[in-house]
Amino acid sequence: MKSSRIHNLITAALACVLAFTTSAVEGADPSTALGTGPLRSWNDGKAKQSVIDFVKRVSVKGGKDFVPAPERIAVFDNDGTLWAEQPLYFQLAFALDRVKALAPQRPEWKDKEPFASLLKGDLKAALAGGEKALVEIVMATHAGTTTEEFERVVRDWMATAKHPKTGRRYNEMIYQPMVELLRYLRANGFKTYIVSGGGVEFMRPWVEKAYGIPPEQVVGSTIKTKFELRDGKPVIMRLPEVDFIDDKEGKPVAINKFIGRRPIFAFGNSDGDREMLLWTAAGGGARFIGIVHHTDAEREWAYDRKSSIGRLDKALDDAHGKGWTVTDMKKDWKQVFPFEK
Amino acid sequence: MKSSRIHNLITAALACVLAFTTSAVEGADPSTALGTGPLRSWNDGKAKQSVIDFVKRVSVKGGKDFVPAPERIAVFDNDGTLWAEQPLYFQLAFALDRVKALAPQRPEWKDKEPFASLLKGDLKAALAGGEKALVEIVMATHAGTTTEEFERVVRDWMATAKHPKTGRRYNEMIYQPMVELLRYLRANGFKTYIVSGGGVEFMRPWVEKAYGIPPEQVVGSTIKTKFELRDGKPVIMRLPEVDFIDDKEGKPVAINKFIGRRPIFAFGNSDGDREMLLWTAAGGGARFIGIVHHTDAEREWAYDRKSSIGRLDKALDDAHGKGWTVTDMKKDWKQVFPFEK
Repeated sequence: MKSSRIHNLITAALACVLAFTTSAVEGADPSTALGTGPLRSWNDGKAKQSVIDFVKRVSVKGGKDFVPAPERIAVFDNDGTLWAEQPLYFQLAFALDRVKALAPQRPEWKDKEPFASLLKGDLKAALAGGEKALVEIVMATHAGTTTEEFERVVRDWMATAKHPKTGRRYNEMIYQPMVELLRYLRANGFKTYIVSGGGVEFMRPWVEKAYGIPPEQVVGSTIKTKFELRDGKPVIMRLPEVDFIDDKEGKPVAINKFIGRRPIFAFGNSDGDREMLLWTAAGGGARFIGIVHHTDAEREWAYDRKSSIGRLDKALDDAHGKGWTVTDMKKDWKQVFPFEK
Repeated sequence: MKSSRIHNLITAALACVLAFTTSAVEGADPSTALGTGPLRSWNDGKAKQSVIDFVKRVSVKGGKDFVPAPERIAVFDNDGTLWAEQPLYFQLAFALDRVKALAPQRPEWKDKEPFASLLKGDLKAALAGGEKALVEIVMATHAGTTTEEFERVVRDWMATAKHPKTGRRYNEMIYQPMVELLRYLRANGFKTYIVSGGGVEFMRPWVEKAYGIPPEQVVGSTIKTKFELRDGKPVIMRLPEVDFIDDKEGKPVAINKFIGRRPIFAFGNSDGDREMLLWTAAGGGARFIGIVHHTDAEREWAYDRKSSIGRLDKALDDAHGKGWTVTDMKKDWKQVFPFEK
C-alpha cells in the first residue's frame, strides 16, 4: 500500500474521531413535490439537462455523436458518489465493528495495539500507530477467511450495522438520484460499472440490489487470494497482503485492465477520481464527466477542498476549467436518500 | 513469474523447434455434409448431446436445475480450446516476429542474447538462456508502449502474420464448433468469458470479431501498467514487469477477482485449466465441465499426456473419473476450422 494513500486514510480516520462530535446534523428533507420521469429526484437545471442531452446525443442512431451500445461504458466512483462517506468511509466502520466481533477469538488483542485501544473505544489512540496500525486493522478484518465466508460476514454486517448519525443501515444511505441515473443509463444501452477505492469483495454482496450493478461490473481495491484444496474441496483464501489499490492513478489502470474499453461517461466526487475523469475525458468523441459536489449540510454533509474524507479540490478546478458537470447536491437533488419521504 | 511456469513455457518453446519439422501435416477435411441447427459443426454424439441437455436443464424456467440468466456464467480457456496452439503458442510466435520487427530500432540486439540468436533464426540457442531469456523476449516485445500503441501492433500482426503450417492468419485458426457453442450459449442467456494464460491485451483486439466476446469479458495474464500524463495527454504505459499469470491455480483466482461469480459452465483442454474446471465443478447446482481432446492429427494435431504444449494428463484423469464431457476432436467435430469447405 502506498504510503501517501495510507496517510490519507489515516488522516481521514483521525478526522472522523472529531467528526463524530462536530459534523452536521442529519435531517431528512421531506420533499413532497417529487417529480416524475426517469430522473424524478433531480431538480430541473443544468446538471439534469446535461445528462439528458448527452444520453440523447450518443444513443440516437444516425446522430453525429452516436456511440454503438457495446461502447457505452459508464463508470462511477462509489464512496461519496453513489453512497455517503461521512463521518468515515463505511468500509472503515465495517473494519472497526469486525475487530469487536473477532475479539473473543483473539484474546491476545487485549494487550496488543492497535486492537487494545480500538476495543477500549479509543480510535484516535489506535490509529496513532500510523500506516502500520491501519494495515493491521484491515488485514485482521479482511483476510484469513475463504471468499465465501467473507461474503457472509459482509452480508451479515450490512443487514445489521447502523450508521451513527442517521441510524439507518449503511446500504440505505445510497443516493436516490444516482440510482435513478444508473437506471436511466442502462435503459439507454449503457453498461454501468463501479470503479471504487473500496474493496471489491466488500461491495459485491450488496451493490447488485442497491444499484442494479452485477458483481462482474464492480472494480475496486483487492487483497491477494490463493486457490487451494481444503479436505479435497476447492476454496479461495483471502491473504493478508495488498494486491491493488484502486484510487487516483490506479483507477484508469484498473479500467484498462478490467474493462478494456475507455468509458464515455464518468462520475466521481473527489480528487481520488480525478485521473479516472481525465482518462475518460481524453477519449475521442462525446464524453460526459460529472462530479457530485457535497453542498448540503442539512440533508447530507457539506465538504470539499478542506475535507480529509472525499477531498474535492483539484478535480473541482478541472471541472470549472474544462466544463464538466458539477452536481450541486443542495440545488440539483430533490431528494438525497431513498428513505426520505 | 513463477519458475515452474517459465519452465513449462521454455519446454514448450524448445519443443516447437522440433515441432516445426516433425509435427503432423495440416490438412483440411472437406466435410461437405454439414449439418444444420445451432451446433451444426458438431457430429451427433455424447458431447453434443450433453451440451444441449445441460443448456436446457438450466434455462427452462420452472425446472429443478433452473439458473437465473445473470448467473449463467460460462468460461473458456483460449489456447487449444477456442483456437489452435501448435506448433507453438501463437502469442510466442507474435513475440518472435516482434523481435524481428523491432530489431532495426535496437542495433544493440545484434550482439546481445537472446536477441542475437533469435535474429539469426536460432530459436533453440535463444531459449538456451532459460527463464531469463524468455522473460527478456516477452518484456522487450510486450512492454514499453502505451496501451493504444500496443493494440495497434497486435492488430497489424494479426492482419498480416501467417501460421507456418496452414499459411492462414492466426485468427482464422479458431475452432468453428466452439464459435457455434459460444453463440448457442449466449442465445440461451449465458455470458461467455475467456479465461486464458495468454495476455489480456494480446487477445482483446481480435476476440470480439472472432468469438463475439467483448473486451470486458476477457480475463488473462497481465503485465503492470502505469497512468501518466504525456505532454498533458493521459496515457497508460505498459511496464516490463509481470502483474499476474492467469494459469493453473491463477485461473480460479482471476475468475473470482474479475467476474465475482462462480461459473456454471467451463471448457478447457489442458492441465493448465484443471483448477478452473475443479472450481467450477465444486459449485452447488448443475454444472457443465468440458474438455477439448486433441485427437485429430489429420485436420489439426493429436497430443495429450506427453505434449509440452497443452499437456492434458491429470485433467483427463479427472474427466474420466468425474464424468466430465470429453470432446474427441476427430469424432465429435464435423469441421475444425472455419476456412475448411
